[in-house]
Amino acid sequence: MSKVAVLGAGSWGTALSIVLADNGHDVRFWTHRKEQANEMNATNRNKKYLDADIPKQITAYHELENAIDDVSAIIMVIPTKAIREVCNDLNKVLKHTPVIIHASKGIEPGSLKRISQVISEEMDNYDYEDITVLSGPSHAEEVGKRLPTTVTVSSVTSSNAEFAQDLFINESFRVYTSTDMIGIELGGALKNIIALGAGISDGLGYGDNAKSALITRGLAEITRLGASLGASPLTFLGLPGAGDLIVTCTSPHSRNWRAGNMLGKGYKLDEVLEQMGMVVEGVRTTKAAHQFANEQQIEMPITEGLYQILFNDEKPKDVVEQLMSRTKREEMDDISAFKNTDYPQ
Amino acid sequence: MSKVAVLGAGSWGTALSIVLADNGHDVRFWTHRKEQANEMNATNRNKKYLDADIPKQITAYHELENAIDDVSAIIMVIPTKAIREVCNDLNKVLKHTPVIIHASKGIEPGSLKRISQVISEEMDNYDYEDITVLSGPSHAEEVGKRLPTTVTVSSVTSSNAEFAQDLFINESFRVYTSTDMIGIELGGALKNIIALGAGISDGLGYGDNAKSALITRGLAEITRLGASLGASPLTFLGLPGAGDLIVTCTSPHSRNWRAGNMLGKGYKLDEVLEQMGMVVEGVRTTKAAHQFANEQQIEMPITEGLYQILFNDEKPKDVVEQLMSRTKREEMDDISAFKNTDYPQ
Repeated sequence: MSKVAVLGAGSWGTALSIVLADNGHDVRFWTHRKEQANEMNATNRNKKYLDADIPKQITAYHELENAIDDVSAIIMVIPTKAIREVCNDLNKVLKHTPVIIHASKGIEPGSLKRISQVISEEMDNYDYEDITVLSGPSHAEEVGKRLPTTVTVSSVTSSNAEFAQDLFINESFRVYTSTDMIGIELGGALKNIIALGAGISDGLGYGDNAKSALITRGLAEITRLGASLGASPLTFLGLPGAGDLIVTCTSPHSRNWRAGNMLGKGYKLDEVLEQMGMVVEGVRTTKAAHQFANEQQIEMPITEGLYQILFNDEKPKDVVEQLMSRTKREEMDDISAFKNTDYPQ
Repeated sequence: MSKVAVLGAGSWGTALSIVLADNGHDVRFWTHRKEQANEMNATNRNKKYLDADIPKQITAYHELENAIDDVSAIIMVIPTKAIREVCNDLNKVLKHTPVIIHASKGIEPGSLKRISQVISEEMDNYDYEDITVLSGPSHAEEVGKRLPTTVTVSSVTSSNAEFAQDLFINESFRVYTSTDMIGIELGGALKNIIALGAGISDGLGYGDNAKSALITRGLAEITRLGASLGASPLTFLGLPGAGDLIVTCTSPHSRNWRAGNMLGKGYKLDEVLEQMGMVVEGVRTTKAAHQFANEQQIEMPITEGLYQILFNDEKPKDVVEQLMSRTKREEMDDISAFKNTDYPQ
């Protein structure tokens, strides 16, 4: 059994802590809010974020130094925008080099960097090869209830991925490994764009036919973008690609779907963000992907349409009509991105 | 504008007739039941099958000879098991060679043949190259309401596919073409296996994580089977593959999902079939795919599990536990089927 630290006290961090505790590990759960740590230790609940009992092997800390002392692994489950800051804080207190596994989904706006790149840039004594990602179709609520869930872990260094697999795998939480870290990270991030679109489609009152078309064509275009960034297109067929896309687009649990749904019903972006009161990663990711697609001349008609809705005040219904009335074409006439099917070894 | 015959009077045949009528075609709708034809012509409804107004350009016939007289295309939307019989009837009355487009989803049990193979075998004056398929993620109810829908048409002869595209395409019904007829037909048929599995998962009370894992891993295994039969794996990423799979697995409209749902709740197969009172294609397709996978030694763990539930009385919960506790592995260690990414031209 290992001593591990989970950094980030939202619903996904809590759910992953429960998996680790179920596997007998000694879990140190870190939040920067003292009251949250105290409340968790006193009540064995993290009730604002996840409706589940917190097992006794989990102890909450609000001082980073105490949380990471002597651990063999650090699990980072932190919003994209806070990652550089937490890494800097870690540099100040970390005296050894535990394995780092992250489970955040996003791309850094502006730099267009993946989370593993951001972490390895900031962390002293860590290179890109040292970072591992965990991603897959996984509502935290269901993981908290021990409902069957599958995820994939990936690192350029396969022994890191296998370490993460051993740490998390159990009978209700199945963990695969992958050697395509780029694809795993991009799948998790880019799917939020399409989730926004799926929410818009539902908000407009369209049906399952429209939504599944959007998911399918959306998968094709994020695969094109991913392949141009070095991912294997096959990864997008897997759990952290198609799987995560499906779960995010078909469930009202998803924050991105909910934001899209409001847009489809006619709310403006600023009204949506105000009413949600939290970060909607898909909005930032749409901006980043749009910028990249334009620079690299990658055809992403759904992302383009979403960008026009989000940032140029286009009406969702007009965008759908444009998408439906594009030139007649072959379905797979844009498959050049898929030609690279060499899988990273 | 063309004169076209639609053979098969269920919900999907009715919906496709409406699309054709909206495009200005003169539609002859054939059912072998005289009362159904009379009722449709009298009431402009086909109320047992689809809750939609029937446009005036559609006339119902119960005599095949009258329905197909002088048409430029025949659309066959007939249950798998009746296709050979209808083809034989057509041979007796057909004096010219209109284009044949089929929109049935299944594999013939025993022979494991696709519908286009069955049709070209039976029809005088038609070769395999003459048949076109139409498939995609499309609930008939939504097509009847003109909600946005996308499908793909395919024929070995590309001019046939383009003819079908022109016949059906309109602003709410977007039609792509594809050159991979094998993949298009197999995607539509094999997805019903996974839809049964998705229904079982929901019937057992599992969540979205489990279902999306099942859809994703199911897509991988039907892709392997399809590729071994000559389909391009990329087709399974498209509308008639992943798209149709998603719409079928996430909607209670789907007959296969409903059958699986009852199995998950503990009903036996014969009770389910009795209570449904209609053909559940996925049951027959599971048997066919299981036979083929064993003969060809293709790894299809989900299909194998379903087969055990359907035909060997295994408990669904036990099968899920077996699937979740398989050996630890790489997610893409079974991608050899995907290596063939040459797309048929």
